[in-house]
Amino acid sequence: MLKLFIGNKAYSSWSLRGWLACKLSGLPFEEVVVPLYDQAWEKRRQGDEFAPSSGKVPILWDGDAVVWDSLAIVEYLNEKSGGDKFWPADPAARAMARSMAAEMHSGFAALRREHSMNIRQVYPPKNPSDEVMQDIQRIMELWAQARARYGGDGDFLFGEFGAVDVMFAPVVTRFVTYSLPVARFAPAYMQAVLQHRFMQDWIAGAQEEEWVIEKFEQEPA
Amino acid sequence: MLKLFIGNKAYSSWSLRGWLACKLSGLPFEEVVVPLYDQAWEKRRQGDEFAPSSGKVPILWDGDAVVWDSLAIVEYLNEKSGGDKFWPADPAARAMARSMAAEMHSGFAALRREHSMNIRQVYPPKNPSDEVMQDIQRIMELWAQARARYGGDGDFLFGEFGAVDVMFAPVVTRFVTYSLPVARFAPAYMQAVLQHRFMQDWIAGAQEEEWVIEKFEQEPA
Repeated sequence: MLKLFIGNKAYSSWSLRGWLACKLSGLPFEEVVVPLYDQAWEKRRQGDEFAPSSGKVPILWDGDAVVWDSLAIVEYLNEKSGGDKFWPADPAARAMARSMAAEMHSGFAALRREHSMNIRQVYPPKNPSDEVMQDIQRIMELWAQARARYGGDGDFLFGEFGAVDVMFAPVVTRFVTYSLPVARFAPAYMQAVLQHRFMQDWIAGAQEEEWVIEKFEQEPA
Repeated sequence: MLKLFIGNKAYSSWSLRGWLACKLSGLPFEEVVVPLYDQAWEKRRQGDEFAPSSGKVPILWDGDAVVWDSLAIVEYLNEKSGGDKFWPADPAARAMARSMAAEMHSGFAALRREHSMNIRQVYPPKNPSDEVMQDIQRIMELWAQARARYGGDGDFLFGEFGAVDVMFAPVVTRFVTYSLPVARFAPAYMQAVLQHRFMQDWIAGAQEEEWVIEKFEQEPA
């Protein structure tokens, strides 16, 4: 059976992506939470299970195969689950979806750095930095284009919940947590993500966690 | 026919990845060089051809489909060219290959920032920063693991030249340009990359280019 190691559900945005990918695959998987900065984590992450990733999460084991990056997990599970659950079927939509997922994977550094994920908090609005505003603007453009061209009657970026929604799900939670300014069309999509049964499951898990890590509980200045 | 827009062959590392992916696909493609910081570039990158990527290269057009990220181009062309040219067939090797490509895609920021690609130069060795040394050490670990487990009789990371070699090719040129310290096993692999006919073709193109951009010609202090 697939075995997915993740960090705290409240804080670990890359873990959320890997976990959503496992859910989306429909394949059974065992989930192992190894909390960040915890003694248990420090000990465990030096073991063989984490060797391929140098201790980073998420890390997915499938027998002898190991995948240690969220986008690689998406592509690995896409192939393993039949190739039709993660990306839209239409070639032009599929090209755009893969481009958006890759841009999220390597980009939006300011948003990620200045507004770390914290599922359990909502802070009042403050003025984001110029770099964060640029990230938000680009994300709005991408979401709007995907919805307009390929959203159809569905609630998600390419209609059905898919890999691109998986990649942007932690961004949705950041927009809520920090009350960031989004375009008028965006809240409907964000609500759809937050109400999705996978996200509801993850959010419930985050609420139940006892660990509090101070560095992730800082409200922006 | 596929149409690939790239930046200067001397400097644009992400362009090199997209271009190598096109070559590896075996599909015919038209190549359009739009030099960075050139007036022609400034004008052209505001046009429709670059709208999906906000002006960034590489960007691949395939009829109505457009792909604007090098890793997305790899996956797009992998599917389009039959699924057997980019990733190793063995599932565990394939999982590792995808993880390595993704780690390269989002990581090694210090190496990329402090040692920008410059195909035409070789500088004498200097002491790299600690962050760059950590990046090099991790890359050596990844290369060594791939070669030991899956290199077999081939010259490349997973035997035959594939997607992971495509992703690391600009790193190989940086190691040479800045005379960076690599492990003893590495030069043989680096030579294989540099001697590959695709790379020889790219390097010849870089040599023939007339553009010189000062900011990419700085020897590290």
